[in-house]
Amino acid sequence: MSDKNKKMVEAITPIDEDFAQWYTDICLKAELVDYSSVKGFTILRPYGQAIWENITRILDGMFKATGHENVAMPLLIPESLLQKEKDHVDGFAPEVAWVTRGGSEELEEPMCIRPTSETLFCDHFSRVLHSWRQLPLLYNQWCSVVRWEKTTRPFLRTREFWWQEGHTIHETAEEALAETRQQLDTYAELCEKHLMMPLMKGIKTESEKFAGAEATYAIEAMMHDGKALQAGTSHYFGDGFSRAFDVTFTGRDNSLQYPFETSWGVSTRLIGGIIMTHGDSEGLILPPAIAPFQVVILPIAQHKEGVLDKAYELKERLQKFVRVKLDDSDNSPGWKFSEWEMKGVPLRLEIGPKDIEKGQCVLVRRDNREKTFVPLEDLETVIPAMLNELATALYNKAAQNLQNRTVTCTTMDEIVQKANEQTGYIRAMWCGEEACEDTMKEKAGLGSRCMPFEQEQVSNVCPMCGKPAKHLVVWGKAY
Amino acid sequence: MSDKNKKMVEAITPIDEDFAQWYTDICLKAELVDYSSVKGFTILRPYGQAIWENITRILDGMFKATGHENVAMPLLIPESLLQKEKDHVDGFAPEVAWVTRGGSEELEEPMCIRPTSETLFCDHFSRVLHSWRQLPLLYNQWCSVVRWEKTTRPFLRTREFWWQEGHTIHETAEEALAETRQQLDTYAELCEKHLMMPLMKGIKTESEKFAGAEATYAIEAMMHDGKALQAGTSHYFGDGFSRAFDVTFTGRDNSLQYPFETSWGVSTRLIGGIIMTHGDSEGLILPPAIAPFQVVILPIAQHKEGVLDKAYELKERLQKFVRVKLDDSDNSPGWKFSEWEMKGVPLRLEIGPKDIEKGQCVLVRRDNREKTFVPLEDLETVIPAMLNELATALYNKAAQNLQNRTVTCTTMDEIVQKANEQTGYIRAMWCGEEACEDTMKEKAGLGSRCMPFEQEQVSNVCPMCGKPAKHLVVWGKAY
Repeated sequence: MSDKNKKMVEAITPIDEDFAQWYTDICLKAELVDYSSVKGFTILRPYGQAIWENITRILDGMFKATGHENVAMPLLIPESLLQKEKDHVDGFAPEVAWVTRGGSEELEEPMCIRPTSETLFCDHFSRVLHSWRQLPLLYNQWCSVVRWEKTTRPFLRTREFWWQEGHTIHETAEEALAETRQQLDTYAELCEKHLMMPLMKGIKTESEKFAGAEATYAIEAMMHDGKALQAGTSHYFGDGFSRAFDVTFTGRDNSLQYPFETSWGVSTRLIGGIIMTHGDSEGLILPPAIAPFQVVILPIAQHKEGVLDKAYELKERLQKFVRVKLDDSDNSPGWKFSEWEMKGVPLRLEIGPKDIEKGQCVLVRRDNREKTFVPLEDLETVIPAMLNELATALYNKAAQNLQNRTVTCTTMDEIVQKANEQTGYIRAMWCGEEACEDTMKEKAGLGSRCMPFEQEQVSNVCPMCGKPAKHLVVWGKAY
Repeated sequence: MSDKNKKMVEAITPIDEDFAQWYTDICLKAELVDYSSVKGFTILRPYGQAIWENITRILDGMFKATGHENVAMPLLIPESLLQKEKDHVDGFAPEVAWVTRGGSEELEEPMCIRPTSETLFCDHFSRVLHSWRQLPLLYNQWCSVVRWEKTTRPFLRTREFWWQEGHTIHETAEEALAETRQQLDTYAELCEKHLMMPLMKGIKTESEKFAGAEATYAIEAMMHDGKALQAGTSHYFGDGFSRAFDVTFTGRDNSLQYPFETSWGVSTRLIGGIIMTHGDSEGLILPPAIAPFQVVILPIAQHKEGVLDKAYELKERLQKFVRVKLDDSDNSPGWKFSEWEMKGVPLRLEIGPKDIEKGQCVLVRRDNREKTFVPLEDLETVIPAMLNELATALYNKAAQNLQNRTVTCTTMDEIVQKANEQTGYIRAMWCGEEACEDTMKEKAGLGSRCMPFEQEQVSNVCPMCGKPAKHLVVWGKAY
């Protein structure tokens, strides 16, 4: 019993007492991850991995429905290949892991573990692309990548992380730009409809864009504490990489041409976003679409005759339309309540001797703890409806937080004042100069999150320098 | 048109002329793989990746149905962790890739890219295991691993390959042994029922077992040329790794105990097995269960009114019950026939103006080229039946090859003679001494494939040394 007792007292830190500690507590105590023996490398435990698999299944279906095909590229990039595109190597070389020995031999050329695979895809494209008839090539791969980060936190910033990276090439710039935007919209749909995370969509400023890209589009989600999480990015490369890697094709007019390129990715970072968007002091709250278990059945007084039988029978029935877990362990009901609340299972179904007598059960929503007595014959309709209501409630609550923490400012004084009042987004104009981004960072501690696609002229001048305003920028602190 | 013409003349090498070249031709020309810029690292192209995804989906379903859970372990293993189990490090250290630099810093301790992850799983188990109540832990991960091989061939032996590795720990030796055998049976079911590959199942001899294992069980498939392919292995470790990594739990009697361990894996090597078991001089022949497309629809005289419309209509109908591709490109029918034959699509559906008039289509089986005229209204029953017949025929043909190439011998002279006559399996007794395995290699050029589970006493003495025979061994050449 010592393990179990230990678990009862090891409550997680209250969310508003220490948000960072609360986050770490959830990652470890809900058994999403374990730290490994290698600094900055985490282990996805079964519960964390199951969430990631649910995300990948949804997203992979979306990719395939829009004509994308999966491939698998090598893990290693020779140094000379990484160096072919100048901006790209400048951006990534400082943070890659280098393989210098294979077996007992020193390698003639060091190779890095892929931090991202633009170079590998381009190298492949240069060999297989011949004619405009093959275009577009719409490729994606699911894998892990390594970036030698200095400070790390589970899901948010780790030296190894799991992700998908899409890489496509197109006959024209217009088609590539449309793809870039379409894939951002796919990510937005995943986040808004399945992960229940409200978003801001926009374009990154020059200083924040991806190394080697002409433009980076991003979705930015706001966490419970008002900080932004860049949840996904989609890049347009023009023909820069094609030229650097000599990727060519014979065009419709028989001339040799360079294709236009995109890449886009989301990662296990999304799980960090789910935790920080929806969780509360009792633990995780999982959106039904990606919850490993959507319903947990807890038998009450399970030693009494007929209770466990009924619970098994319900499990059989429910697993036809929801992912369901039956906890028939000999832990106390109180322990089970806490455990499955911490793990964020959307609905708890309690069934005891009295319920069975009355032909009913109790359904408890994880988000608002609302209890409902439900006739057993109605479960097929009530459970899906309740899961939908819960999902909508999660989205609305997060949208309210986003709205509460977003303000529009026109002067630097106002910006500094608002930034001191609360963490969140400040919408303000910008002249387009990097120096003014630096000023914003120094004076208000805020970075540019993005230039939202929905632009609006909230004032005529840049609050930092007083020069004519060019873009509306959303400023904030970010993970 | 130059690309297309090029394709027509670039026929693949006939299978019985040069089997090795035939194999490579298929890998490249059926667009399963591309060589990368890193020696021994291949790229899985969309068609190859789709086959692998179909295999993984079937196998992952089997794992989950037997209570296994997926996790994700780190890519890197610190040198000190790799060294904890002596036999294991002796087996793997000579063939791993070493990371010695991260970003701009030299690492204090080199880390290798995982060649297999026993050490990582044990390290994790040592942190999370406390009580017998948690056992068994039945874990699996899908990932790629790196082994710095000297000579490489697509799928069969590459420096990086994709696989799953299962790692489980159990309260008792009996349970772990049962798991070892159960997982081998799962692999056998995958191969025999889905990949249509007949197998031999058995135990590896001491010299052939996995580094650190107490016992290695294997499934061995026979290729078209009579060589064996080790298609999957399942290892029993006893408590050796547990002791080396200090993995302990409090037992039912409150004493501290070491769990018993297993690991098991299959890899993209299976795709090499599929190619070499079923293919012919025209190219791949894919078992329906894992074919990216089970039916390819080829419209005949597609410029004529109504043909393409009918083809699209059929595609809509068929995709409800099979994976279907419609090739409406402007390539000639002859080109399309060759292309999709080479890619091994099990059934070709031809539909032209005359067929439409008669309300029928032509179905052509890839394996025996049998043509059948089928009324359009019967497709929902005829296609699944024909796919089943084709699958059975593939299995039977391979089983016939296995039978034809298996002989039983009792003397060394007989063994040498049979080994010279044809490539295949020789069943012969063995005394159990490694020296006699060496003798067999020297004199007949054969290695021990396994000691089949179904033992039989075919003679009383070891043909190599004349000492009393202990085991029936199947000997052969292997990939």
